[in-house]
Amino acid sequence: MRLRGRKGIREEIESQPELVVLDPAPYRGRWRERFGNDRPIHVELGMGKGKFISEMSVRNPEINYIGIDMFDELIRRAAVKARAAWAPQGAETPPNLALVRANIEYLETFFAPGEIERIYLNFSDPWPKKKHAKRRLTHPRFLRKYLDILNENGEIHFKTDSRLLFEFSLNSFCDMEITLRNISLDLHRDGLREDLVMTEYETKFAEQGMPIYRLEAVVGE
Amino acid sequence: MRLRGRKGIREEIESQPELVVLDPAPYRGRWRERFGNDRPIHVELGMGKGKFISEMSVRNPEINYIGIDMFDELIRRAAVKARAAWAPQGAETPPNLALVRANIEYLETFFAPGEIERIYLNFSDPWPKKKHAKRRLTHPRFLRKYLDILNENGEIHFKTDSRLLFEFSLNSFCDMEITLRNISLDLHRDGLREDLVMTEYETKFAEQGMPIYRLEAVVGE
Repeated sequence: MRLRGRKGIREEIESQPELVVLDPAPYRGRWRERFGNDRPIHVELGMGKGKFISEMSVRNPEINYIGIDMFDELIRRAAVKARAAWAPQGAETPPNLALVRANIEYLETFFAPGEIERIYLNFSDPWPKKKHAKRRLTHPRFLRKYLDILNENGEIHFKTDSRLLFEFSLNSFCDMEITLRNISLDLHRDGLREDLVMTEYETKFAEQGMPIYRLEAVVGE
Repeated sequence: MRLRGRKGIREEIESQPELVVLDPAPYRGRWRERFGNDRPIHVELGMGKGKFISEMSVRNPEINYIGIDMFDELIRRAAVKARAAWAPQGAETPPNLALVRANIEYLETFFAPGEIERIYLNFSDPWPKKKHAKRRLTHPRFLRKYLDILNENGEIHFKTDSRLLFEFSLNSFCDMEITLRNISLDLHRDGLREDLVMTEYETKFAEQGMPIYRLEAVVGE
Protein backbone atom coordinates (compact mmCIF):
# COMPACT_ATOMS: atom_id res chain seq x y z
CA MET A 1 0.00 0.00 0.00
CA ARG A 2 1.83 3.05 -1.19
CA LEU A 3 0.87 6.14 0.77
CA ARG A 4 2.89 8.54 -1.25
CA GLY A 5 4.11 8.89 -4.77
CA ARG A 6 7.81 8.77 -5.51
CA LYS A 7 8.05 12.53 -5.23
CA GLY A 8 6.51 12.46 -1.79
CA ILE A 9 8.89 9.78 -0.63
CA ARG A 10 11.83 11.74 -2.00
CA GLU A 11 10.71 14.90 -0.25
CA GLU A 12 10.28 13.12 3.05
CA ILE A 13 13.79 11.72 3.09
CA GLU A 14 15.30 14.97 1.85
CA SER A 15 13.70 16.81 4.72
CA GLN A 16 15.71 15.14 7.50
CA PRO A 17 19.43 15.57 6.86
CA GLU A 18 20.12 15.18 10.59
CA LEU A 19 19.31 11.49 10.13
CA VAL A 20 19.32 10.71 6.42
CA VAL A 21 22.39 11.06 4.20
CA LEU A 22 21.58 10.97 0.50
CA ASP A 23 25.08 11.76 -0.69
CA PRO A 24 27.66 10.03 1.52
CA ALA A 25 30.83 10.69 -0.51
CA PRO A 26 31.66 13.98 1.26
CA TYR A 27 31.77 12.11 4.56
CA ARG A 28 34.46 9.68 3.45
CA GLY A 29 37.13 9.74 6.18
CA ARG A 30 34.99 12.20 8.14
CA TRP A 31 32.17 10.16 9.67
CA ARG A 32 33.58 10.80 13.15
CA GLU A 33 33.07 14.49 12.55
CA ARG A 34 29.46 13.94 11.59
CA PHE A 35 28.78 11.85 14.70
CA GLY A 36 30.74 14.34 16.81
CA ASN A 37 32.78 11.76 18.70
CA ASP A 38 35.42 9.01 18.30
CA ARG A 39 33.19 6.06 19.04
CA PRO A 40 33.44 2.94 16.88
CA ILE A 41 31.32 2.90 13.75
CA HIS A 42 29.26 -0.19 12.83
CA VAL A 43 27.61 -0.42 9.44
CA GLU A 44 24.69 -2.53 8.22
CA LEU A 45 24.98 -3.22 4.50
CA GLY A 46 21.40 -3.61 3.35
CA MET A 47 19.28 -2.39 6.23
CA GLY A 48 15.94 -3.23 4.70
CA LYS A 49 13.12 -1.71 6.73
CA GLY A 50 15.44 -0.73 9.52
CA LYS A 51 14.35 -2.78 12.55
CA PHE A 52 17.83 -4.16 13.17
CA ILE A 53 19.76 -0.90 12.95
CA SER A 54 17.12 0.99 14.94
CA GLU A 55 17.19 -1.48 17.83
CA MET A 56 20.96 -1.75 17.78
CA SER A 57 21.32 2.01 18.00
CA VAL A 58 19.06 2.09 21.07
CA ARG A 59 20.73 -0.91 22.74
CA ASN A 60 24.27 0.30 22.16
CA PRO A 61 24.43 4.08 22.52
CA GLU A 62 28.21 3.93 22.77
CA ILE A 63 28.43 2.78 19.16
CA ASN A 64 27.73 4.87 16.08
CA TYR A 65 25.59 3.13 13.49
CA ILE A 66 25.24 3.60 9.76
CA GLY A 67 22.48 1.80 7.89
CA ILE A 68 22.88 1.59 4.14
CA ASP A 69 20.35 0.75 1.45
CA MET A 70 19.63 1.75 -2.11
CA PHE A 71 15.95 2.60 -2.23
CA ASP A 72 14.17 5.77 -1.17
CA GLU A 73 11.19 3.94 0.28
CA LEU A 74 13.38 1.76 2.48
CA ILE A 75 15.28 4.82 3.70
CA ARG A 76 11.98 6.50 4.44
CA ARG A 77 10.64 3.54 6.42
CA ALA A 78 13.87 3.07 8.32
CA ALA A 79 13.77 6.73 9.37
CA VAL A 80 10.26 6.28 10.71
CA LYS A 81 11.31 3.15 12.60
CA ALA A 82 14.43 4.73 13.99
CA ARG A 83 12.61 7.76 15.32
CA ALA A 84 9.94 5.52 16.83
CA ALA A 85 12.62 3.41 18.51
CA TRP A 86 14.21 6.48 20.08
CA ALA A 87 11.03 8.33 21.00
CA PRO A 88 10.69 6.51 24.38
CA GLN A 89 14.20 7.75 25.20
CA GLY A 90 12.91 11.27 24.72
CA ALA A 91 15.08 11.84 21.65
CA GLU A 92 13.52 13.24 18.49
CA THR A 93 16.55 12.32 16.44
CA PRO A 94 18.64 9.21 17.12
CA PRO A 95 22.00 10.59 18.29
CA ASN A 96 24.14 7.71 17.04
CA LEU A 97 22.60 6.77 13.72
CA ALA A 98 22.88 7.77 10.07
CA LEU A 99 20.69 6.26 7.34
CA VAL A 100 22.55 6.33 4.07
CA ARG A 101 21.22 5.87 0.58
CA ALA A 102 24.03 4.33 -1.40
CA ASN A 103 25.08 1.43 -3.58
CA ILE A 104 27.43 -0.98 -1.83
CA GLU A 105 29.26 -1.40 -5.14
CA TYR A 106 30.89 1.93 -4.37
CA LEU A 107 31.58 1.38 -0.68
CA GLU A 108 35.13 2.64 -0.93
CA THR A 109 33.94 5.99 -2.23
CA PHE A 110 32.24 6.87 1.03
CA PHE A 111 34.35 5.02 3.60
CA ALA A 112 38.07 5.53 4.05
CA PRO A 113 40.44 2.67 4.94
CA GLY A 114 40.09 1.64 8.58
CA GLU A 115 37.12 3.90 9.22
CA ILE A 116 34.72 1.11 10.23
CA GLU A 117 34.88 -1.36 13.12
CA ARG A 118 32.12 -3.76 12.17
CA ILE A 119 29.95 -4.72 9.23
CA TYR A 120 26.57 -6.42 9.58
CA LEU A 121 25.12 -8.45 6.72
CA ASN A 122 21.60 -9.63 7.51
CA PHE A 123 19.67 -11.83 5.12
CA SER A 124 21.40 -10.47 2.05
CA ASP A 125 20.02 -11.32 -1.38
CA PRO A 126 21.20 -14.88 -2.14
CA TRP A 127 21.30 -14.30 -5.93
CA PRO A 128 20.90 -18.09 -6.40
CA LYS A 129 21.90 -18.29 -10.07
CA LYS A 130 25.55 -19.11 -10.68
CA LYS A 131 25.88 -16.25 -13.13
CA HIS A 132 24.86 -13.81 -10.41
CA ALA A 133 27.37 -15.09 -7.87
CA LYS A 134 29.37 -11.88 -8.10
CA ARG A 135 26.40 -9.92 -6.80
CA ARG A 136 26.27 -11.77 -3.50
CA LEU A 137 27.48 -9.47 -0.74
CA THR A 138 29.83 -12.18 0.55
CA HIS A 139 31.55 -12.70 -2.78
CA PRO A 140 35.33 -12.29 -2.44
CA ARG A 141 35.21 -9.06 -4.42
CA PHE A 142 32.98 -7.54 -1.75
CA LEU A 143 35.01 -9.12 1.05
CA ARG A 144 38.04 -7.28 -0.32
CA LYS A 145 36.14 -4.00 -0.05
CA TYR A 146 35.24 -4.81 3.54
CA LEU A 147 38.83 -5.68 4.42
CA ASP A 148 39.86 -2.26 3.13
CA ILE A 149 37.45 -0.21 5.20
CA LEU A 150 37.65 -2.25 8.43
CA ASN A 151 40.12 -1.30 11.14
CA GLU A 152 42.34 -3.47 13.36
CA ASN A 153 39.33 -4.60 15.42
CA GLY A 154 37.32 -5.26 12.29
CA GLU A 155 34.62 -7.91 12.23
CA ILE A 156 31.86 -8.98 9.88
CA HIS A 157 28.72 -10.48 11.42
CA PHE A 158 26.63 -12.30 8.85
CA LYS A 159 23.36 -14.16 9.14
CA THR A 160 20.98 -15.64 6.61
CA ASP A 161 18.24 -18.21 6.17
CA SER A 162 19.65 -19.24 2.80
CA ARG A 163 21.68 -22.45 3.07
CA LEU A 164 23.04 -21.82 -0.42
CA LEU A 165 24.24 -18.35 0.43
CA PHE A 166 25.73 -19.47 3.73
CA GLU A 167 27.62 -22.30 2.07
CA PHE A 168 28.91 -19.91 -0.57
CA SER A 169 29.88 -17.43 2.13
CA LEU A 170 31.75 -19.98 4.25
CA ASN A 171 33.82 -20.81 1.21
CA SER A 172 34.39 -17.15 0.30
CA PHE A 173 35.70 -16.33 3.75
CA CYS A 174 37.82 -19.49 3.93
CA ASP A 175 39.25 -18.99 0.44
CA MET A 176 40.46 -15.60 1.62
CA GLU A 177 41.79 -17.19 4.82
CA ILE A 178 39.66 -14.94 7.00
CA THR A 179 39.27 -16.24 10.57
CA LEU A 180 35.75 -17.36 11.43
CA ARG A 181 34.16 -18.03 14.79
CA ASN A 182 30.77 -18.63 16.44
CA ILE A 183 29.50 -20.36 13.32
CA SER A 184 25.92 -21.51 13.76
CA LEU A 185 23.88 -23.71 11.46
CA ASP A 186 20.74 -23.14 13.55
CA LEU A 187 20.99 -19.93 15.51
CA HIS A 188 17.82 -20.26 17.54
CA ARG A 189 18.15 -24.01 18.08
CA ASP A 190 18.18 -23.72 21.86
CA GLY A 191 15.59 -20.97 21.96
CA LEU A 192 15.49 -17.44 20.59
CA ARG A 193 18.79 -15.66 21.01
CA GLU A 194 17.47 -12.59 22.78
CA ASP A 195 21.00 -11.26 23.11
CA LEU A 196 21.13 -10.77 19.35
CA VAL A 197 18.85 -8.24 17.71
CA MET A 198 16.63 -9.87 15.09
CA THR A 199 15.46 -8.49 11.78
CA GLU A 200 11.83 -8.45 10.59
CA TYR A 201 12.65 -11.40 8.33
CA GLU A 202 14.32 -13.31 11.07
CA THR A 203 11.42 -13.22 13.47
CA LYS A 204 9.21 -14.76 10.79
CA PHE A 205 11.73 -17.46 9.98
CA ALA A 206 12.48 -18.35 13.55
CA GLU A 207 8.77 -18.84 14.18
CA GLN A 208 8.56 -21.21 11.21
CA GLY A 209 11.37 -23.28 12.65
CA MET A 210 13.64 -22.62 9.67
CA PRO A 211 17.31 -22.66 10.64
CA ILE A 212 19.13 -19.34 10.65
CA TYR A 213 22.80 -19.54 9.73
CA ARG A 214 25.27 -17.13 11.26
CA LEU A 215 28.97 -16.47 11.49
CA GLU A 216 31.43 -13.88 12.74
CA ALA A 217 34.50 -13.09 10.68
CA VAL A 218 37.47 -11.54 12.43
CA VAL A 219 39.44 -9.49 9.94
CA GLY A 220 41.49 -7.23 12.17
CA GLU A 221 44.78 -8.14 13.80
CA MET B 1 22.08 -61.99 12.61
CA ARG B 2 25.27 -63.18 14.16
CA LEU B 3 26.80 -66.07 12.28
CA ARG B 4 29.65 -66.67 14.62
CA GLY B 5 30.37 -66.33 18.29
CA ARG B 6 32.96 -63.82 19.48
CA LYS B 7 35.63 -66.51 19.42
CA GLY B 8 34.89 -67.28 15.79
CA ILE B 9 35.08 -63.63 14.85
CA ARG B 10 38.38 -63.29 16.65
CA GLU B 11 39.81 -66.31 14.91
CA GLU B 12 38.75 -65.07 11.52
CA ILE B 13 40.48 -61.72 11.87
CA GLU B 14 43.56 -63.27 13.44
CA SER B 15 43.93 -65.57 10.46
CA GLN B 16 44.69 -62.87 7.88
CA PRO B 17 47.68 -60.80 9.02
CA GLU B 18 48.42 -59.87 5.40
CA LEU B 19 45.36 -57.61 5.59
CA VAL B 20 44.39 -57.21 9.24
CA VAL B 21 46.63 -55.59 11.85
CA LEU B 22 45.51 -56.23 15.41
CA ASP B 23 48.49 -54.60 17.08
CA PRO B 24 49.57 -51.50 15.13
CA ALA B 25 52.12 -50.06 17.58
CA PRO B 26 55.12 -51.90 16.08
CA TYR B 27 54.39 -50.26 12.74
CA ARG B 28 54.68 -46.72 14.08
CA GLY B 29 57.05 -44.90 11.72
CA ARG B 30 57.29 -48.07 9.60
CA TRP B 31 54.04 -48.27 7.64
CA ARG B 32 55.96 -47.65 4.40
CA GLU B 33 57.89 -50.82 5.08
CA ARG B 34 54.72 -52.80 5.55
CA PHE B 35 53.25 -51.50 2.30
CA GLY B 36 56.58 -52.01 0.58
CA ASN B 37 56.68 -48.62 -1.17
CA ASP B 38 56.81 -44.85 -0.56
CA ARG B 39 53.30 -44.02 -1.70
CA PRO B 40 51.20 -41.60 0.35
CA ILE B 41 49.19 -43.11 3.19
CA HIS B 42 45.53 -42.16 3.69
CA VAL B 43 43.72 -43.23 6.84
CA GLU B 44 40.01 -43.58 7.58
CA LEU B 45 39.31 -43.07 11.29
CA GLY B 46 36.23 -45.17 11.96
CA MET B 47 35.79 -47.31 8.88
CA GLY B 48 32.55 -48.94 9.93
CA LYS B 49 31.70 -51.81 7.61
CA GLY B 50 34.42 -50.89 5.18
CA LYS B 51 32.64 -49.90 1.95
CA PHE B 52 34.43 -46.56 1.72
CA ILE B 53 37.96 -47.78 2.34
CA SER B 54 37.48 -50.82 0.09
CA GLU B 55 36.28 -48.78 -2.86
CA MET B 56 38.92 -46.11 -2.33
CA SER B 57 41.66 -48.72 -2.36
CA VAL B 58 40.41 -50.09 -5.67
CA ARG B 59 39.90 -46.65 -7.24
CA ASN B 60 43.28 -45.30 -6.18
CA PRO B 61 45.89 -48.05 -6.36
CA GLU B 62 48.65 -45.46 -6.13
CA ILE B 63 47.62 -44.62 -2.56
CA ASN B 64 48.08 -46.83 0.50
CA TYR B 65 45.02 -47.02 2.71
CA ILE B 66 44.60 -47.79 6.38
CA GLY B 67 41.14 -48.32 7.81
CA ILE B 68 40.83 -48.10 11.57
CA ASP B 69 38.06 -49.23 13.87
CA MET B 70 37.72 -50.64 17.35
CA PHE B 71 35.51 -53.69 17.02
CA ASP B 72 36.36 -57.18 15.89
CA GLU B 73 33.12 -57.67 13.97
CA LEU B 74 33.62 -54.48 11.98
CA ILE B 75 37.18 -55.51 11.14
CA ARG B 76 35.90 -58.90 10.06
CA ARG B 77 33.22 -57.41 7.81
CA ALA B 78 35.56 -54.87 6.32
CA ALA B 79 38.00 -57.64 5.43
CA VAL B 80 35.25 -59.52 3.62
CA LYS B 81 34.23 -56.36 1.75
CA ALA B 82 37.79 -55.45 0.84
CA ARG B 83 38.54 -58.86 -0.57
CA ALA B 84 35.28 -58.83 -2.50
CA ALA B 85 36.12 -55.41 -3.92
CA TRP B 86 39.49 -56.62 -5.13
CA ALA B 87 38.41 -60.03 -6.39
CA PRO B 88 37.42 -58.71 -9.87
CA GLN B 89 40.96 -57.34 -10.14
CA GLY B 90 42.21 -60.86 -9.70
CA ALA B 91 43.84 -60.03 -6.36
CA GLU B 92 43.17 -62.24 -3.37
CA THR B 93 44.60 -59.71 -0.97
CA PRO B 94 44.22 -55.95 -1.52
CA PRO B 95 47.79 -54.78 -2.20
CA ASN B 96 47.37 -51.26 -0.80
CA LEU B 97 45.18 -51.70 2.25
CA ALA B 98 45.58 -52.47 5.94
CA LEU B 99 42.62 -52.89 8.30
CA VAL B 100 43.65 -51.91 11.79
CA ARG B 101 41.91 -52.59 15.06
CA ALA B 102 42.79 -49.70 17.32
CA ASN B 103 41.41 -46.93 19.49
CA ILE B 104 41.82 -43.48 17.95
CA GLU B 105 42.51 -42.13 21.44
CA TYR B 106 46.00 -43.58 21.04
CA LEU B 107 46.60 -42.51 17.46
CA GLU B 108 50.06 -41.18 18.21
CA THR B 109 51.19 -44.57 19.49
CA PHE B 110 50.87 -46.16 16.07
CA PHE B 111 51.58 -43.24 13.71
CA ALA B 112 54.75 -41.20 13.77
CA PRO B 113 54.77 -37.45 13.05
CA GLY B 114 54.30 -36.71 9.36
CA GLU B 115 53.61 -40.32 8.46
CA ILE B 116 50.14 -39.72 7.04
CA GLU B 117 49.02 -37.60 4.09
CA ARG B 118 45.27 -37.62 4.57
CA ILE B 119 42.65 -38.46 7.17
CA TYR B 120 39.05 -39.33 6.32
CA LEU B 121 36.28 -38.89 8.87
CA ASN B 122 32.99 -40.26 7.60
CA PHE B 123 29.80 -39.96 9.64
CA SER B 124 31.62 -40.01 12.96
CA ASP B 125 29.59 -40.42 16.14
CA PRO B 126 28.06 -37.00 16.88
CA TRP B 127 28.03 -37.53 20.68
CA PRO B 128 25.22 -34.95 20.93
CA LYS B 129 25.36 -34.33 24.69
CA LYS B 130 27.49 -31.36 25.70
CA LYS B 131 29.29 -33.44 28.30
CA HIS B 132 30.47 -35.82 25.59
CA ALA B 133 31.82 -33.10 23.33
CA LYS B 134 35.40 -34.25 23.95
CA ARG B 135 34.60 -37.60 22.38
CA ARG B 136 33.71 -36.12 19.02
CA LEU B 137 36.46 -36.93 16.53
CA THR B 138 36.61 -33.30 15.43
CA HIS B 139 37.15 -31.95 18.92
CA PRO B 140 40.30 -29.78 19.08
CA ARG B 141 42.05 -32.42 21.17
CA PHE B 142 41.70 -34.89 18.32
CA LEU B 143 42.55 -32.24 15.73
CA ARG B 144 45.84 -31.75 17.55
CA LYS B 145 46.60 -35.45 17.19
CA TYR B 146 45.85 -35.24 13.48
CA LEU B 147 48.08 -32.20 13.04
CA ASP B 148 50.92 -34.18 14.57
CA ILE B 149 50.70 -37.20 12.31
CA LEU B 150 49.92 -35.36 9.05
CA ASN B 151 52.73 -34.34 6.71
CA GLU B 152 53.25 -31.13 4.69
CA ASN B 153 50.52 -32.14 2.23
CA GLY B 154 48.20 -33.10 5.05
CA GLU B 155 44.45 -32.85 4.63
CA ILE B 156 41.39 -33.95 6.58
CA HIS B 157 38.25 -34.79 4.59
CA PHE B 158 35.19 -34.90 6.80
CA LYS B 159 31.56 -35.60 6.02
CA THR B 160 28.49 -36.15 8.17
CA ASP B 161 24.72 -36.00 8.14
CA SER B 162 24.68 -34.46 11.61
CA ARG B 163 24.14 -30.71 11.45
CA LEU B 164 25.14 -30.45 15.11
CA LEU B 165 28.42 -32.26 14.57
CA PHE B 166 29.19 -30.28 11.44
CA GLU B 167 28.56 -26.98 13.19
CA PHE B 168 30.76 -28.08 16.08
CA SER B 169 33.44 -29.19 13.64
CA LEU B 170 33.44 -25.96 11.66
CA ASN B 171 34.08 -24.12 14.90
CA SER B 172 36.77 -26.57 16.03
CA PHE B 173 38.72 -26.18 12.82
CA CYS B 174 38.27 -22.40 12.77
CA ASP B 175 39.22 -22.01 16.42
CA MET B 176 42.49 -23.75 15.56
CA GLU B 177 42.87 -21.52 12.50
CA ILE B 178 42.99 -24.51 10.16
CA THR B 179 42.29 -23.59 6.53
CA LEU B 180 39.04 -24.99 5.17
CA ARG B 181 37.82 -25.37 1.61
CA ASN B 182 35.12 -27.05 -0.47
CA ILE B 183 32.64 -26.69 2.38
CA SER B 184 29.28 -28.13 1.43
CA LEU B 185 26.01 -27.91 3.35
CA ASP B 186 24.30 -30.27 0.90
CA LEU B 187 26.81 -32.45 -0.86
CA HIS B 188 24.49 -34.18 -3.29
CA ARG B 189 22.37 -31.08 -3.95
CA ASP B 190 23.02 -31.11 -7.67
CA GLY B 191 22.88 -34.87 -7.98
CA LEU B 192 24.95 -37.68 -6.51
CA ARG B 193 28.63 -36.83 -6.42
CA GLU B 194 29.86 -39.93 -8.19
CA ASP B 195 33.40 -38.65 -8.00
CA LEU B 196 33.35 -39.11 -4.24
CA VAL B 197 33.09 -42.59 -2.80
CA MET B 198 30.04 -42.93 -0.57
CA THR B 199 29.66 -44.90 2.63
CA GLU B 200 26.82 -47.35 3.35
CA TYR B 201 25.22 -44.70 5.57
CA GLU B 202 25.57 -42.02 2.99
CA THR B 203 23.75 -43.85 0.24
CA LYS B 204 20.75 -44.26 2.52
CA PHE B 205 20.78 -40.60 3.56
CA ALA B 206 21.21 -39.27 0.06
CA GLU B 207 18.20 -41.28 -1.06
CA GLN B 208 16.13 -39.77 1.74
CA GLY B 209 17.08 -36.28 0.59
CA MET B 210 18.82 -35.46 3.86
CA PRO B 211 21.67 -33.01 3.39
CA ILE B 212 25.20 -34.34 3.76
CA TYR B 213 27.71 -31.85 5.12
CA ARG B 214 31.32 -32.00 4.01
CA LEU B 215 34.55 -30.07 4.30
CA GLU B 216 38.23 -30.38 3.47
CA ALA B 217 40.79 -29.08 5.94
CA VAL B 218 44.24 -28.24 4.67
CA VAL B 219 46.73 -28.64 7.46
CA GLY B 220 50.02 -28.92 5.64
CA GLU B 221 52.12 -26.02 4.38
